[in-house]
Amino acid sequence: MARTARSPDLGAYQHRTALKRGAKRFSLSDFDPGDKPFSSGDKTRDKAVVAKLAQDLDGLQDLFYADRRFKLLVVLQGTDTSGKDGTIRGVFGQMSALGVQTVGWKAPNDEARARDYLWRIHQRIPACGEVVIFNRSHYEDVLVPVVKGQIGKTETLQRYAQINDFERMLTETGTVILKFMLHISKDEQRARLQERLRDPNKHWKFEGGDLDARKQWDSYQQAYSYAIAATGTPWAPWTIVPADSKTHRNLMIATVVKQALEGLNLRYPPGDPSLAHIVVE
Amino acid sequence: MARTARSPDLGAYQHRTALKRGAKRFSLSDFDPGDKPFSSGDKTRDKAVVAKLAQDLDGLQDLFYADRRFKLLVVLQGTDTSGKDGTIRGVFGQMSALGVQTVGWKAPNDEARARDYLWRIHQRIPACGEVVIFNRSHYEDVLVPVVKGQIGKTETLQRYAQINDFERMLTETGTVILKFMLHISKDEQRARLQERLRDPNKHWKFEGGDLDARKQWDSYQQAYSYAIAATGTPWAPWTIVPADSKTHRNLMIATVVKQALEGLNLRYPPGDPSLAHIVVE
Repeated sequence: MARTARSPDLGAYQHRTALKRGAKRFSLSDFDPGDKPFSSGDKTRDKAVVAKLAQDLDGLQDLFYADRRFKLLVVLQGTDTSGKDGTIRGVFGQMSALGVQTVGWKAPNDEARARDYLWRIHQRIPACGEVVIFNRSHYEDVLVPVVKGQIGKTETLQRYAQINDFERMLTETGTVILKFMLHISKDEQRARLQERLRDPNKHWKFEGGDLDARKQWDSYQQAYSYAIAATGTPWAPWTIVPADSKTHRNLMIATVVKQALEGLNLRYPPGDPSLAHIVVE
Repeated sequence: MARTARSPDLGAYQHRTALKRGAKRFSLSDFDPGDKPFSSGDKTRDKAVVAKLAQDLDGLQDLFYADRRFKLLVVLQGTDTSGKDGTIRGVFGQMSALGVQTVGWKAPNDEARARDYLWRIHQRIPACGEVVIFNRSHYEDVLVPVVKGQIGKTETLQRYAQINDFERMLTETGTVILKFMLHISKDEQRARLQERLRDPNKHWKFEGGDLDARKQWDSYQQAYSYAIAATGTPWAPWTIVPADSKTHRNLMIATVVKQALEGLNLRYPPGDPSLAHIVVE
């Protein structure tokens, strides 16, 4: 079958073999952030497709909410300026706030640090019929301490095993987990950070720590690669999203989410024939 | 070394080999609820020892709270009238409410049922320095559906694996977990239920469901046995407490908790020499 823009090879961008012995080591550097595997080659057309997909997702979310058999957890990870906020607006923006929640994870407070790092995460998982989007996630609780050298290899491995167990339990109890790594190049990040500094209306998004993290670019890329290698499981695979192009990023994520929802064979609960005869006075 | 009342063979009452291949199948019926392995043989003396132990535990909890390196989760399971409330009063009653919390788990509400069964449990785990006592626990989320025939063998096994993973994560992140099965005989339960019915001041503790559960005594004993067999792990062992005697029950549990706390080598954080010179005006 000829490949079209709508049926690219998604498998090449997904990592789900973390637990296989001898699985090839995973590295983000094998992916070009400038690639556009889901693009038609025409940006105007791509944008129209994204708009259509966002509408489709709105309809599917309505059905998902009514069906109530599943929960959907979307995890967005990526460096600063990789487009996590933009994804939420561009891909999930058409969905009804009824049944969709976004959680933006910051550094844990005292209450959370007095417990295991999954404690606050578990509290915010989706209920039946709900879609929850994590803007950053429990992965930060490994990535940041790894880059800062606060935890060693043993504890890093232990945390990823804990995360795999936690995510498996969630999927076994009805949660669909989709994890996206928004993959941009170092050059693209420079341009986006510079843009934030140029535009006073974007200053609120700029934090001094962004530049510190940028200085540790290579360490973070390595930590992300390791995280994906260790936690790309059959039940909660990672999708690597080439994200230098915002349109392509939205196109790819929207396509993956739509495919996942369609694969659930969602249905409205059966109607009650007697209700149709009721006349409301 | 001669065995005294203070050094009985605790190992015989602990189950922690759930994950060992070929581990002997565990059955509660191998334990006599009327045994008193921790007793001196003199009830008055035993009661005095319990009182002393409860005071010791108060001191240890103060130290535990100041030390803040660990969290202690005590799980009390057992049939109706097995003495869970009495244990909390008799063993933990001297501890300061500052740093000790009891959670009595009832049937989950709609909010909890819309999520995985560990969601509400995870919210109430102890923070650093805290002692949390679960009066019933996440084990009810397997025991009850098993006895009611609502889940099959596959899902039962899956839930116990999930619980083992969850408890391992908690212990890996600093929680000490002590699980106690309060083991009474069917005759002893009859006497205690009858007493509740005789005394109007105890009617508040009586529920119609207690008699239904009693009718399924054998099913529950079997379900408890299976639960203990599957979840008595090295990191979160079960202790079987012969509990027909309330004094013995308290004596045994207090001894186990004390040993566990003493094994942590708790310490007050180092004093600040400069503070001793401050004169408060």
